[in-house]
Amino acid sequence: MFQLHPQLAADTVPVVTWRLCQVLLINDANYPWLVLVPARDGLRDLDDLEPADLQRASEEIVRASKALKSAFSPDKINVGALGNMVPQLHIHVIARFADDPAWPQPIWGVVPAQPYAADALDARLDVLRDALGAS
Amino acid sequence: MFQLHPQLAADTVPVVTWRLCQVLLINDANYPWLVLVPARDGLRDLDDLEPADLQRASEEIVRASKALKSAFSPDKINVGALGNMVPQLHIHVIARFADDPAWPQPIWGVVPAQPYAADALDARLDVLRDALGAS
Repeated sequence: MFQLHPQLAADTVPVVTWRLCQVLLINDANYPWLVLVPARDGLRDLDDLEPADLQRASEEIVRASKALKSAFSPDKINVGALGNMVPQLHIHVIARFADDPAWPQPIWGVVPAQPYAADALDARLDVLRDALGAS
Repeated sequence: MFQLHPQLAADTVPVVTWRLCQVLLINDANYPWLVLVPARDGLRDLDDLEPADLQRASEEIVRASKALKSAFSPDKINVGALGNMVPQLHIHVIARFADDPAWPQPIWGVVPAQPYAADALDARLDVLRDALGAS
């Protein structure tokens, strides 16, 4: 019965689907910015996950983090589960750089999203799918 | 050889020590705001944790989240591992309210920290230690 929240669907492009999470790319070229959405109905907070799903979520967060490191060599990974505006549990995994527009602040609300050009989006998805693996 | 980063030590009050993490209270009365610091040397990102510690970290994040819910009945829990400024891995677990000073934004950098008065700090630590458990 899982359905991706319409706001998440509007802001992102699907990248891959893992055992627990849908892995989405935020359509903002300012940062390599993934969102992991556990495909379970009715979750809001990390503590709503069943124990086996919690373990899998943490493994998938790490997998996404390592993939971003491998693909982009960032200065830092930021991970966050906030959800004050979009109530469906989603976990941000973001590659941060000392010269990105928000550094060293968290990225939320600092500069407007800059949608990818079509070619740049295709290129980024290729790199991400290669780094993240198919499933 | 683990030593708490001096900036984290300066900004927080120790609450309890769990199997993996030191649980600290940020000295900011604007929000019930915990920080969990895995007591392992040399960690920066969640993906630096060994697999067993990753599982324990996720369990302790959930334990802290449930304790904040039990003690404060917040509208949302925010969890974040950012660390752009303080490089030692630390995980924020924050009870958020629709009438708190930053809602619905993330809390970082919105309003200046408001240190607890001594009596209020003692009262908050009592509530937290009761909710979090001793070890």
